[in-house]
Amino acid sequence: MTTLTINLPHSKYDINIGSGLLDRIDEFFNLDRRVFIITDSGVPREYAETVKKKAGLGYVCTLPAGEGTKSIACFETALSQMVELGFSRGDCVVSVGGGVVGDLGGYVASSYMRGVDFYNVPTTTLSQLDSSIGGKVAINLNGVKNIVGAFYQPKGVLIDTRTLKTLDERQYASGLCEAIKMAMTSNAELFAFFEKNAVNESNLEYVISEALKIKKSVVEKDEKETSLRKILNFGHTYGHAIESITGMEKLYHGECVSLGMIPMCSEEARKRLLPVLNKFGLPTSFTPDFEEIYRVMAHDKKASGGFIDAIFVEKIGEYKIEKISVEALTKMIKEIVLTKGDF
Amino acid sequence: MTTLTINLPHSKYDINIGSGLLDRIDEFFNLDRRVFIITDSGVPREYAETVKKKAGLGYVCTLPAGEGTKSIACFETALSQMVELGFSRGDCVVSVGGGVVGDLGGYVASSYMRGVDFYNVPTTTLSQLDSSIGGKVAINLNGVKNIVGAFYQPKGVLIDTRTLKTLDERQYASGLCEAIKMAMTSNAELFAFFEKNAVNESNLEYVISEALKIKKSVVEKDEKETSLRKILNFGHTYGHAIESITGMEKLYHGECVSLGMIPMCSEEARKRLLPVLNKFGLPTSFTPDFEEIYRVMAHDKKASGGFIDAIFVEKIGEYKIEKISVEALTKMIKEIVLTKGDF
Repeated sequence: MTTLTINLPHSKYDINIGSGLLDRIDEFFNLDRRVFIITDSGVPREYAETVKKKAGLGYVCTLPAGEGTKSIACFETALSQMVELGFSRGDCVVSVGGGVVGDLGGYVASSYMRGVDFYNVPTTTLSQLDSSIGGKVAINLNGVKNIVGAFYQPKGVLIDTRTLKTLDERQYASGLCEAIKMAMTSNAELFAFFEKNAVNESNLEYVISEALKIKKSVVEKDEKETSLRKILNFGHTYGHAIESITGMEKLYHGECVSLGMIPMCSEEARKRLLPVLNKFGLPTSFTPDFEEIYRVMAHDKKASGGFIDAIFVEKIGEYKIEKISVEALTKMIKEIVLTKGDF
Repeated sequence: MTTLTINLPHSKYDINIGSGLLDRIDEFFNLDRRVFIITDSGVPREYAETVKKKAGLGYVCTLPAGEGTKSIACFETALSQMVELGFSRGDCVVSVGGGVVGDLGGYVASSYMRGVDFYNVPTTTLSQLDSSIGGKVAINLNGVKNIVGAFYQPKGVLIDTRTLKTLDERQYASGLCEAIKMAMTSNAELFAFFEKNAVNESNLEYVISEALKIKKSVVEKDEKETSLRKILNFGHTYGHAIESITGMEKLYHGECVSLGMIPMCSEEARKRLLPVLNKFGLPTSFTPDFEEIYRVMAHDKKASGGFIDAIFVEKIGEYKIEKISVEALTKMIKEIVLTKGDF
């Protein structure tokens, strides 16, 4: 088991990472009270049931699987149930599942009686790597992602790598892309590990821990997302644009980030990145309509006055941030995608 | 004009109090951006229009007057409009009206993009005295008041005493009760002022400033409401119980607090309190069903294991907090109400 302690100015909590930890959840979280367990229909039912068994008084709230659950309607459903069940300020919320229930559950916990304890049990590679640290909780509104939410830190996070066994292969790989992304900007050693090894149950704890250490150091220095956090967006500007024009049904988030990183590297870094992406079954070839890409990137909420802070990796494990016009960025991406051939 | 600066561990803001300040609102708030103005149909329309005129790009969102507006539905309405109008993280929300729009607007501001600047322009005695400081923002759900919300501090508060002119007499007096309450526990001089003077436009700035100074010192010492804030609940335990069994339509909040303070005083303090309440047109006589009162107080969220921290005033300007069983408290109140005659 690996424990990472997140130290923030006004809070502190542990992330415990290991195989089979879910069965020992009561060693890590204070569940001897009313526990509102939020999960979704895509998550194996036994995970939430395991939490319920360990809880003083556990209630399972199962919402529909999918991004549509990050809605005001589901927010209200969960809160109403807590009211009806008589939850008090001393009780808690536990999210069990992917990013959707983590984001929704965190926002519910932050809002109920102006804040009750929140624990997160992410069960997908993406949520274990991406949304288990950071304190950003939110729901969507009118088709805009994460537009309503709060900064709210969990009291604890439990990452049981065994839960990844039930994940389908494409989702598994898509999530791992976040670890590759973090290695690209900040940890050459972890990247070399990806070049030399397959990721499997024997080393998942190492991979997740190393990737989270990067995110931890970023978040600790920059809780409210001002500048340093930008490096976590490596591959995301172009990646989000692809996601936006193809729709999430066709390409998963990590697959879009995979494609999004490729043009943001030096030739030398790209030569090492492509085989790793291929090895993990992540896409490396995609030719979009660049006019649409331009239009979407220009409306990116991180763009300001036609310019955007783009993150480039010249040398693996290092990054630079450059303010560049969306026009120039689109041109650069287009040139690389069209001339560097089918990766 | 009086300026009170609220110093909290992680934020700092000014409350400006004076007559006619609304016309100079842009001197106090940064309105040179998109400004989402939340008001309700019970507030004179010209107040919101004044803010709009001073704003870079102002939009007025007028919700129905009344407690029903503190709902998830109105929360969603306001947020949806902000999304559609293209509000960004650098824009702001201004509430113009009573406690309802202050609470709702603050919660909307705290949630939009995980927090945009919030300014509050309370226009009733109650909201100027009670909800302009404290950072408690919330909506109601399933009939439970303030069950969903956040701790979110405004960037600034503007109290224009001239807006009180349009308030009906009963609402005006009901709000002033909060100032009497604060004087009772913490400021004998202010209480003596109430004994000697009528409150009118010439001294409203003084009365509001003095009462807010008490609340300021409490909130600064106890931002997240742990113990000291309890003194602000003087008269509220029994008062809330009356409110709960009579319904807010029959008696206003301040009227219930007025009745709620009477049994919580020494004989000596009560002798001075009653004439002041009478003078301000606040009720002093009410005989409830004490079994119902007991039942409601036992379910008060501040009660724990049948006990409650009750605030007593023996000597005006001072208080003591005593843990007392709800049973003993009910008995004590009943005895005073029934034997001390019609006040």
